[in-house]
Amino acid sequence: MKIAVLPGDGIGPEIVAQAVKVLEALRSDGLKIEMEHAHIGGAGYDAAKDPLPEATLDLSKASDAVLLGAVGGYQYDNLPRPMRPEQGLLRIRKGLGLFANLRPAMVYPELVNASTLRSDIVSGLDIMILRELTGDIYFGQPRGIRTLENGERQGFDTMHYSESEVRRVAHVGFQIAMKRNKKLCSVDKANVLDTSMFWREIVTEVAKEYPQVALSHMYVDNAAMQLVRAPKQFDVILTGNIFGDILSDEASMLTGSIGMLPSASLDESNKGLYEPCHGSAPDIAGKDIANPLATILSVAMMMQYSFGRADIAQRIEAAVRKVLQQGLRTGDIYEEGKQKVGCAAMGDAVVAAL
Amino acid sequence: MKIAVLPGDGIGPEIVAQAVKVLEALRSDGLKIEMEHAHIGGAGYDAAKDPLPEATLDLSKASDAVLLGAVGGYQYDNLPRPMRPEQGLLRIRKGLGLFANLRPAMVYPELVNASTLRSDIVSGLDIMILRELTGDIYFGQPRGIRTLENGERQGFDTMHYSESEVRRVAHVGFQIAMKRNKKLCSVDKANVLDTSMFWREIVTEVAKEYPQVALSHMYVDNAAMQLVRAPKQFDVILTGNIFGDILSDEASMLTGSIGMLPSASLDESNKGLYEPCHGSAPDIAGKDIANPLATILSVAMMMQYSFGRADIAQRIEAAVRKVLQQGLRTGDIYEEGKQKVGCAAMGDAVVAAL
Ligand SMILES: CC(C)[C@H](C(=O)O)[C@@H](O)C(=O)O
Ligand SMILES: CC(C)[C@H](C(=O)O)[C@@H](O)C(=O)O
Repeated sequence: MKIAVLPGDGIGPEIVAQAVKVLEALRSDGLKIEMEHAHIGGAGYDAAKDPLPEATLDLSKASDAVLLGAVGGYQYDNLPRPMRPEQGLLRIRKGLGLFANLRPAMVYPELVNASTLRSDIVSGLDIMILRELTGDIYFGQPRGIRTLENGERQGFDTMHYSESEVRRVAHVGFQIAMKRNKKLCSVDKANVLDTSMFWREIVTEVAKEYPQVALSHMYVDNAAMQLVRAPKQFDVILTGNIFGDILSDEASMLTGSIGMLPSASLDESNKGLYEPCHGSAPDIAGKDIANPLATILSVAMMMQYSFGRADIAQRIEAAVRKVLQQGLRTGDIYEEGKQKVGCAAMGDAVVAAL
Repeated sequence: MKIAVLPGDGIGPEIVAQAVKVLEALRSDGLKIEMEHAHIGGAGYDAAKDPLPEATLDLSKASDAVLLGAVGGYQYDNLPRPMRPEQGLLRIRKGLGLFANLRPAMVYPELVNASTLRSDIVSGLDIMILRELTGDIYFGQPRGIRTLENGERQGFDTMHYSESEVRRVAHVGFQIAMKRNKKLCSVDKANVLDTSMFWREIVTEVAKEYPQVALSHMYVDNAAMQLVRAPKQFDVILTGNIFGDILSDEASMLTGSIGMLPSASLDESNKGLYEPCHGSAPDIAGKDIANPLATILSVAMMMQYSFGRADIAQRIEAAVRKVLQQGLRTGDIYEEGKQKVGCAAMGDAVVAAL
């Protein structure tokens, strides 16, 4: 298991350090794990004037999986766009062909009070959002700022999806649904967008190969409402890059504990990049108070999806559940009566529970 | 006050009938109100094979304001797209130049329990979402389904905003903020989209003319999260057509009582179209159980924005508050201990309270 480790910026290094402890513990247990570190985001810019240095992309290509912390920091906010940290993220996704972004939104029984929603609405919540990650308006050409015939300026972008792009992510969606509750809701805006009308046509075609999965379609505005109204109606949500960006963040916040949510971004052969859903939180960086559990749970996803080791994934998830049951909490998920611990102590506790 | 009345489909006719009662009551009070009815949506298709018959657009152009119910119904779901009810909506917006869509999301103290969010998170919520309504990817050309060089098909759309489009809606946003808590949050995806980068540049420029308004910028994914996490942080949210579609629906659902939320869509000279935020609810149409309050509150917005009669708007709003305080509830906002009433009875109660 050759793993590229890209800590990135802000709290990235400290949360990734805890996930690395978990990987090291698994190695002492006998797993053949090799890790190599490289820079991305602001750290890439600082080291090599590039948010995705060539060496980082090369290392990632040569690895079986990538573990990423987070990117972004105030000091990079005024750089020209191509130098900004998030460009590193967009480029590594595209560069590795990571078209399938899996973002679970689940509520741990121990943390149900962290949600801003009523507990009857969210307790037991367990949704998987599958967001297409290398197409759509994120990468469509032409785009830019142009001058119209009447002399005024206009900003523009192109949204598009080709048949093969929709088809491959739809297959991933149906396959995930088959392993879960066999319900797939495809989200689009087919009453307005041609891209969405096409998306819906292809998803409906692919569905014929998965007769056991109940497929539904929902407009994105309605999906944004239904996630607030009754999120437990969903099993797997399949959607494009931009709608997925919005809906997966909304869904993650329903749980109230975004510090607990991992993600996986996979290519055609299940090589993947694994990162927490949350950002680089520069305001709390270096203070040993960040929550490393989303990053540790990203290692669990890595074991499951890239290395086919669902057994190890379950061990890691069980260890995380155990520390929660022991009452350990980082500041973001703290509630009265529990024991507040720092980032490193939380990492150690998970290793001990493992 | 010349008002075009377009009941539309589903519950449209019955909720609009209650709003018309309110207008008639105001007329008996001395207001010079003229009303004329016309078809839109499925009703337009049934009457004239067109979701926006020419007569309807002509009447609307010749009126000072338009009162709309809702459009859409199962029987129209399989029509070719140009014949679908929602095309009537898109075309009347564009045809009347209704670029500024105001969608308040507020929680009535009497209805705070209707929300799926904890009451501490939403009680007292009062946000105004200003969505640009005649530009963006909704109307951008080119769009369609094309065949690529490699022979595969691709769906595509164009997102764009010109300087004058952003400028005029930004002015509306700052003016609304001036009358409220002087906070405007502009929502975009400027870390990815060129259209958004341009949007942000122009909004920032317009802000210089409103030094008393505190302007902030937020990415749309973060906004979708913040609406769930801490919606009361917002005063006015300004955003484009597609992001506004998603965020305004999300925000309306935070209140839990979408049957209470009106909307206004204004042109350059405050001529407007007024409609409830909710849809045509075909499943409960004709049963006299729909909630007419959002439509009645849309008349209040009409009085305020198109006719400059904030005094009458307040009278209508006070009447609605009064029936809530009396304990009257339609089914959608019913809770134990209150008195359940039908659509027509609710309309009568508001007229009585007026
Ligand atoms: C940082 C940004 C470019 C990125 C995205 O929009 O994809 C982020 O929001 C995410 O969801 O990973
Ligand atoms: C029906 C649909 C075309 C419309 C839109 O997307 O604008 C609706 O969702 C709305 O928000 O009024």
